[in-house]
Amino acid sequence: MTNPTAAMLVIGDEILSGRTRDSNLHYLACELTKHGIRLAEARIVADDHAEIVAAVNALRGKYDHLFTSGGIGPTHDDITADAIADAFGAPIGPRADAMALLAAHYERQNVPFNESRQRMARIPDGASLIDNPVSIAPGFTLGNVHVMAGVPRIFEAMLASVLPTLTGGAPLLSQTLRLMRGEGEIAADFGALAAEFPDLSMGSYPFTMNGAYGTNLVIRGTDPARVDAAMLRLTALFG
Amino acid sequence: MTNPTAAMLVIGDEILSGRTRDSNLHYLACELTKHGIRLAEARIVADDHAEIVAAVNALRGKYDHLFTSGGIGPTHDDITADAIADAFGAPIGPRADAMALLAAHYERQNVPFNESRQRMARIPDGASLIDNPVSIAPGFTLGNVHVMAGVPRIFEAMLASVLPTLTGGAPLLSQTLRLMRGEGEIAADFGALAAEFPDLSMGSYPFTMNGAYGTNLVIRGTDPARVDAAMLRLTALFG
Repeated sequence: MTNPTAAMLVIGDEILSGRTRDSNLHYLACELTKHGIRLAEARIVADDHAEIVAAVNALRGKYDHLFTSGGIGPTHDDITADAIADAFGAPIGPRADAMALLAAHYERQNVPFNESRQRMARIPDGASLIDNPVSIAPGFTLGNVHVMAGVPRIFEAMLASVLPTLTGGAPLLSQTLRLMRGEGEIAADFGALAAEFPDLSMGSYPFTMNGAYGTNLVIRGTDPARVDAAMLRLTALFG
Repeated sequence: MTNPTAAMLVIGDEILSGRTRDSNLHYLACELTKHGIRLAEARIVADDHAEIVAAVNALRGKYDHLFTSGGIGPTHDDITADAIADAFGAPIGPRADAMALLAAHYERQNVPFNESRQRMARIPDGASLIDNPVSIAPGFTLGNVHVMAGVPRIFEAMLASVLPTLTGGAPLLSQTLRLMRGEGEIAADFGALAAEFPDLSMGSYPFTMNGAYGTNLVIRGTDPARVDAAMLRLTALFG
């Protein structure tokens, strides 16, 4: 598949301790699939400067895009912006347009724009801001890295700002055949069919229902005619 | 913290395409936290031999344990066992005890033990089997890598077999103070407190309720007395 590729880096102790169940990865996966960008890898790391820097540099070099979530708030454990700056060797400091956005926001709320809140205007040099219609504090894009908030509602809003600016490919299509037969029964024929369609990706996902084994057979690809052709063959085999 | 460390590797195109929402990572995170093993990193890769091998070798070298999920069924996209064997440079083939388990299982079900199903008895040399009370086909442990199924019910059952065999540390405790105040308001004092307790991990997690901002302040550590001491200070500051 020649679609653009992407990776995701989820940043936060709370995901790895089990305190918080991440939902941004699944959301991003669905949105990128619709946009024709192939999410090829994801990593989750703790709030650890060196780990974030290493993961950012590994992933931004390997894929067309890297999306990060988490660690851009006002508290001491929000260390993502500095880590991104370090990964790029870029200076970082308070940025005038971000400061102005936040100052106006807190003035409207009649809340002091204190030093902690000013931290959210620290943006690496050379970045462009990502709009945050929910709570104003912006994300940013530096090179091919899109740095977004961890709070799902804000992550989703930021993604909605970023995604239209990225060149997608043909949408990644999928069709599913649901069978009440065990995987082991259909594996040989399904594998042979997959080998005949090397341009498609075929996967088999077992489930149980009322104690009986079933399998979802999924065909994925970008060419609708090929996906249709494979699905016709599949239904002829098992339908 | 001197607790043992672990990583997780989730294997499967279906997670990255958004077709399936992974739940094993969150489950593993919670179980390891109770057992005193610190989940330090997670990765999700596609059904790609080279990617799996590279991730397994990176993670098994860096952490005390690596748990994998997915890719050990009977179909052509189940390539995890071969990738693990390759990562260790270990031979792989059908193993007598696994073959016997599966043969008896399918005989009881009056279902043919065909070539596809026999693939599930392919185990790298030197591994020990992980019991699968749900659908019999075993997982395995090779070195410090625990290879388990992707279906959540089976993953959870396998983890229940493996976890008691691993040496845990002191359980990772956490206490939470829930405040109806924004993060930016408490960030400076909270950060100063975190700096006073470098042996603990303190995190701040914002939420909104009925349009108002709130923050969960979380203190984590293994020494109950230290966690209590920090929580007393925290409630004195903000309670």
